[in-house]
Amino acid sequence: MTNLAVVGGGVIGLSTAWRAAANGHDVTLYDPEPVRGGASWLAGGMLAPVTEAWPGEEDVLALGEESLRRWPGFADELAKEGVDPGLAEHGTLVVAFDSADAGYLDILADHLHGIGRAADRLTGREAKRLEPGVGSVRSGLHVPGDLAVDNRKLLHALYAAGVNHKVRFVRERVERIPDAEAVVLAAGAWTGRLHPQLAGAVRPLKGEILRLKPRRGCLPPPTRTIRAVVEGKPIYLVPRGDEELVLGATQYEAGFDRAVTARGVRELIEGAERVFPAITEYELAETAAGLRAGSRDVLPYVGLLDDGVFAATGHHRNGLLMAPVTADAVVAWLEGEKPPEGVEAASPARLHQKEHV
Amino acid sequence: MTNLAVVGGGVIGLSTAWRAAANGHDVTLYDPEPVRGGASWLAGGMLAPVTEAWPGEEDVLALGEESLRRWPGFADELAKEGVDPGLAEHGTLVVAFDSADAGYLDILADHLHGIGRAADRLTGREAKRLEPGVGSVRSGLHVPGDLAVDNRKLLHALYAAGVNHKVRFVRERVERIPDAEAVVLAAGAWTGRLHPQLAGAVRPLKGEILRLKPRRGCLPPPTRTIRAVVEGKPIYLVPRGDEELVLGATQYEAGFDRAVTARGVRELIEGAERVFPAITEYELAETAAGLRAGSRDVLPYVGLLDDGVFAATGHHRNGLLMAPVTADAVVAWLEGEKPPEGVEAASPARLHQKEHV
Repeated sequence: MTNLAVVGGGVIGLSTAWRAAANGHDVTLYDPEPVRGGASWLAGGMLAPVTEAWPGEEDVLALGEESLRRWPGFADELAKEGVDPGLAEHGTLVVAFDSADAGYLDILADHLHGIGRAADRLTGREAKRLEPGVGSVRSGLHVPGDLAVDNRKLLHALYAAGVNHKVRFVRERVERIPDAEAVVLAAGAWTGRLHPQLAGAVRPLKGEILRLKPRRGCLPPPTRTIRAVVEGKPIYLVPRGDEELVLGATQYEAGFDRAVTARGVRELIEGAERVFPAITEYELAETAAGLRAGSRDVLPYVGLLDDGVFAATGHHRNGLLMAPVTADAVVAWLEGEKPPEGVEAASPARLHQKEHV
Repeated sequence: MTNLAVVGGGVIGLSTAWRAAANGHDVTLYDPEPVRGGASWLAGGMLAPVTEAWPGEEDVLALGEESLRRWPGFADELAKEGVDPGLAEHGTLVVAFDSADAGYLDILADHLHGIGRAADRLTGREAKRLEPGVGSVRSGLHVPGDLAVDNRKLLHALYAAGVNHKVRFVRERVERIPDAEAVVLAAGAWTGRLHPQLAGAVRPLKGEILRLKPRRGCLPPPTRTIRAVVEGKPIYLVPRGDEELVLGATQYEAGFDRAVTARGVRELIEGAERVFPAITEYELAETAAGLRAGSRDVLPYVGLLDDGVFAATGHHRNGLLMAPVTADAVVAWLEGEKPPEGVEAASPARLHQKEHV
């Protein structure tokens, strides 16, 4: 039994704390505002490594796929703890407005078929038949297997599961590495402040996200996640049943600024109106900005920094997706076992190996 | 000394309660949420009868001008009660993007000159010299005399002044006319539910309004109120010092729905980006929708409904502007005096006189 300190109460920290405590370790988690305080609270909740990863980011895709395989078991275990995190298997429809977008969908379809995944290339008409609410699209790509999770339910469920296993929650901001046999640094964009190896290697990536609700008489949200690139900017619409639609996300390099900007909100709404025109009459229920943790490449830093101190940060848009594999890796290390496939590539050791990664 | 019940704790109800109590009457004000609960909390705060009124709405303009004359004294009296409501004399710049807009500015300028008000017609270049933050405008109209008030400071000040004069605040929703020697119905868009003569004569006019704050490095807000018509829709930007910019307002007939819509927010931001491009990088600090009280014409209903029961509602966009004249009219009636000039035209008696007004 190891005495473990986890710094950060977002999806990575909560998942790691829960899994470690459930495996018999003695866990303390430090965060001034666990569950609601970080980027995971503001996420869309897509668990879609393939439609996220551009061909070329093979390491990211491999780690994402490895984590995706763990997701159904992870969600089942969590449901047994008392709160169902709400895993939805509704799939993704990616839509194209012009020939450049359509070309990208062809590449994505080839890539998916290459790795044995189902993916149906659709005409604009077929896309509209699948999701009658979509606008005038040129073509589409239906990826039936994609999962999504209600990120807020998930965070509450992880917290409750941690409490079940006697994780101690210390609601304080940590300025230096806590004293413990093992420490996991999972403070997202702020992790760079906690360890010299990560200083400058982790940076905040600001993302604005909106939550909308259909008003009376409005077309209900689509039944699948819908993704598109509008005027060069990727957007997604993730339904939360019939009640809510999560619309994201801008991405800027803006330091630690979490202000929602006029431009960000306008661009998201404009884009969404092209993808799903009925959204124009939806209630704008929430506007928020979060700071994802960026690494120098797109891979996270998951692995040993120095004696007993592990990094678990830099997950970019993939924090929710990669939470199970990250937590499992930490538990494997604590128990002297081999970590899951694909984790080795995410070792922070790569920060020494090359000058610029 | 009359025992007076005021129904409604927005700007009209609070002003009337304060003025009546300050004149020695015994006042009870009913509102489940005075100060913050109604349309006045969400207003821009322009006190600009002329740039608001289209030529043709002469009765509205006359009543607005009468109230505007009372505003400096009203604000002084209120400041003496302890809280300065923040009257700003920063004037208005109306900008034109095309020849139709420019034609409207010519008419407005003639109209202002006709009533003896200063108003300077400007080229686009002159408008930009006056307010360097404005976008590419064709021409402008500078109206130096226009006043604006910080509506939230004002509402707090009125509440405090009422307390000073022993107004009793009953935080309850009133379903029927309270028992009192005299009653003022000032429940805004909801007033139609309180009296049969007003049923169907007062309706909610939904307006969405945004509050934005300059982020570090942004151009500060303009020094004047800026108004424009963008794609047929009037918008205004009212500065609150260097800290905040109020951006309004949409107008819909949407019943008692107070949901902020995606379209409303997008249109306001789009319009504002044309008028004052730097706003695009401002923080979107607040989105809200309020329900103005519409009358059948654009004049409010201010006057006797039946024995001892007065209407003070239906002020459309002019509630803040017309609060002093409305309060003074009620006090005059309580004391058997003649009401201010222009109030007679606003009598609800006109609801009987014509079939459709």
